[in-house]
Amino acid sequence: MPLNPERVISDLRELQALTADAHGAQRLAWTPVWLKARDWFSAKVKDLPVESHLDAAGNSWITLRGKSKRSLLLGSHLDSVPNGGWLDGCLGVLAGLEILRSIAEEGDGTPPITLRLVDWADEEGARFGRSLFGSSAFAGTATIEADRNRTDRNGIRLEDALAICGVDIAKVHGATKEQADIAAYLELHIEQGPILEGRKLPLGTVLGTKGVERHTITFRGQEAHSGSTPMNVRRDALAAAAKLALEIRPIARKHSEAVATMGSVKTFPGIVTAVVGRCEVTLDMRDLDAGVLASMLAEAKEASERFAAEEGCTVAWSKIWSIEPISFDPQLVTFCEEAIQETTTISHSLPSGPLHDAAEVARTGIPTTMMFVQSLAGLSHNAAEDTEIEHLELAVEAFNKLARKTIKWLKENDVRT
Amino acid sequence: MPLNPERVISDLRELQALTADAHGAQRLAWTPVWLKARDWFSAKVKDLPVESHLDAAGNSWITLRGKSKRSLLLGSHLDSVPNGGWLDGCLGVLAGLEILRSIAEEGDGTPPITLRLVDWADEEGARFGRSLFGSSAFAGTATIEADRNRTDRNGIRLEDALAICGVDIAKVHGATKEQADIAAYLELHIEQGPILEGRKLPLGTVLGTKGVERHTITFRGQEAHSGSTPMNVRRDALAAAAKLALEIRPIARKHSEAVATMGSVKTFPGIVTAVVGRCEVTLDMRDLDAGVLASMLAEAKEASERFAAEEGCTVAWSKIWSIEPISFDPQLVTFCEEAIQETTTISHSLPSGPLHDAAEVARTGIPTTMMFVQSLAGLSHNAAEDTEIEHLELAVEAFNKLARKTIKWLKENDVRT
Repeated sequence: MPLNPERVISDLRELQALTADAHGAQRLAWTPVWLKARDWFSAKVKDLPVESHLDAAGNSWITLRGKSKRSLLLGSHLDSVPNGGWLDGCLGVLAGLEILRSIAEEGDGTPPITLRLVDWADEEGARFGRSLFGSSAFAGTATIEADRNRTDRNGIRLEDALAICGVDIAKVHGATKEQADIAAYLELHIEQGPILEGRKLPLGTVLGTKGVERHTITFRGQEAHSGSTPMNVRRDALAAAAKLALEIRPIARKHSEAVATMGSVKTFPGIVTAVVGRCEVTLDMRDLDAGVLASMLAEAKEASERFAAEEGCTVAWSKIWSIEPISFDPQLVTFCEEAIQETTTISHSLPSGPLHDAAEVARTGIPTTMMFVQSLAGLSHNAAEDTEIEHLELAVEAFNKLARKTIKWLKENDVRT
Repeated sequence: MPLNPERVISDLRELQALTADAHGAQRLAWTPVWLKARDWFSAKVKDLPVESHLDAAGNSWITLRGKSKRSLLLGSHLDSVPNGGWLDGCLGVLAGLEILRSIAEEGDGTPPITLRLVDWADEEGARFGRSLFGSSAFAGTATIEADRNRTDRNGIRLEDALAICGVDIAKVHGATKEQADIAAYLELHIEQGPILEGRKLPLGTVLGTKGVERHTITFRGQEAHSGSTPMNVRRDALAAAAKLALEIRPIARKHSEAVATMGSVKTFPGIVTAVVGRCEVTLDMRDLDAGVLASMLAEAKEASERFAAEEGCTVAWSKIWSIEPISFDPQLVTFCEEAIQETTTISHSLPSGPLHDAAEVARTGIPTTMMFVQSLAGLSHNAAEDTEIEHLELAVEAFNKLARKTIKWLKENDVRT
């Protein structure tokens, strides 16, 4: 069966019809709609000559045995945010399925190396606030004790939601054994940003995922009556925070790919008649270069202290989460650039701002890269998420070329066969 | 009985012991603790030769009949915010009571003019968000239809809370009949700000209450992924709001007494990983000069539109509430300055930033002024609110002198006797 990109589109539309409502995709991990999506996917592969299993973290694996145990892994995730789009995550899984279908019918049906396809569990972290759940378990970076007692909006614990889906949180580290024999990992994903569209390019090679520094910053001044407190004696925590909200922008703009975002501001007491006594903000900074990211963090800290002093306030930082930048494998990046060039004549390489399961896989040392396909208006995580059909079909073709180049490379460098 | 300032202190301590807990005063209007405070007050006056009644808005009146119907009114409020201080409001009522006691025992017990004392109902508006409830009913500026359906945190309607206390909201305008024969109004209050303390002065004459412009301002940009959206394509609603938070300060500082406060900021979606798509802020601006206040409002609006345009956002304003500046009566202001000078040798005059019942009374055309006593650290509306005992005693003495000067003036100018 030759590669049929149109079938990927029709599979995506089928999944959308099954798991989306008027507000968008509802494949929230560890919920019935997500399980329904996985059941649908199982039915899709049941006539293929593959083995299927769930690992200890709930990741779903399909294996097409080859002449060598040495494996190429393709993957992405079927789960979505609530009210999500029709492409985020599932595009990569269904493109991988299409490649697996076409390879399974070639020659004697046994490819030179083993081909595996993974649907990572709970990439989005939308229900419990823990992204990359399944892939971090695979990578051995799971944080069981920190995650066990996370609760969703209804107070249900992560541990209990997993148990309903047959996953014992105490055993998720067992997913690391899936690493055996995996020699490369490839992931196709929508960009979720405006860069490719801005350059009128359908496809891009991903150089790596940016490092992230995510912090809560609390400014404390003095709550005071808005009517009786002269301007010159105020210790306004909001003023210090407002200065920082503006200052993070020049800090990020010094570096071409860096971003810095203040996404949340909370004011206390937060009433119209009181000067803000306490202001809590969040800061998210990202760059592909660890040195740049560290210097941005240091500059933001210095600025926050300066602004606090100017406003008679104090400032305290509390880390929410951070991850180092992950650079993808140079050989696979080259293959990806070639595959895109052969498909569309123009190649562009860019880092990924959003995190992906590929970052967790790359941390294990497994050679990894990703391919991005253009997102219209840079939108994702909502029902308006979309990509031109023509671009999706080009993406499946180019991703197939990338997989073939990688299989050839792995076969040629397989010292164990 | 000669004036006894120490008795005012002991009355205040008694009321505190009866109606405060470890977190502060709990005399929230229309609640059992407030009614307990009023019962305690009724018991305090029961041996005095006075008449007592509640008006149609729940204001509590004490009348010491004089030789003329022409009346001097003293007043303030017994209600407090939750976790309030021991002085805000009740100082003025209990100082008024002490003056009434001393006058009732002078001569033949019938003063030349009538002396009245009012405990305004619900000055704070802390439970239903409607300040100056009783005094606005007295002034004829009540807003019954807007207020009727206000609810407290437990969903109880203002109308129903009033009914429990014997007040029919449909009839509160009847309180305007209390205006008859009132020829002057005097109110003693703590400053609730740092100005007198900063000048090391125990007492001050209040020139009037500042006008207030109170608005909600909504900036709308584009929610976007914090990782995938380059800095140069963002439409960050928080950035526009942060610029305004800083710009209102120079706008206010152009005028010596003006204040401008951004007390609340809300960000949407308000998560660490998204550029703020919508930012709602509140603005409260005050000045004693209506022209200054209008120009500040115009400047803030112009600035908000400029910042919105700079950030690719839109901006919309929605008025919460406004009141014009109220200037107090020049003759009474002069009496107040004299009374303070005679008591402490130094007089200072200042506008009030916070609103007071006196502003509503002054709107009727009744000559009005207020006296402020120093607040330690400018604090009020919390349990830390305090004033030196010595300053409180000076306040009672000076306020008594002001009342005597006003009685003499009213008597000399009484064309009806």
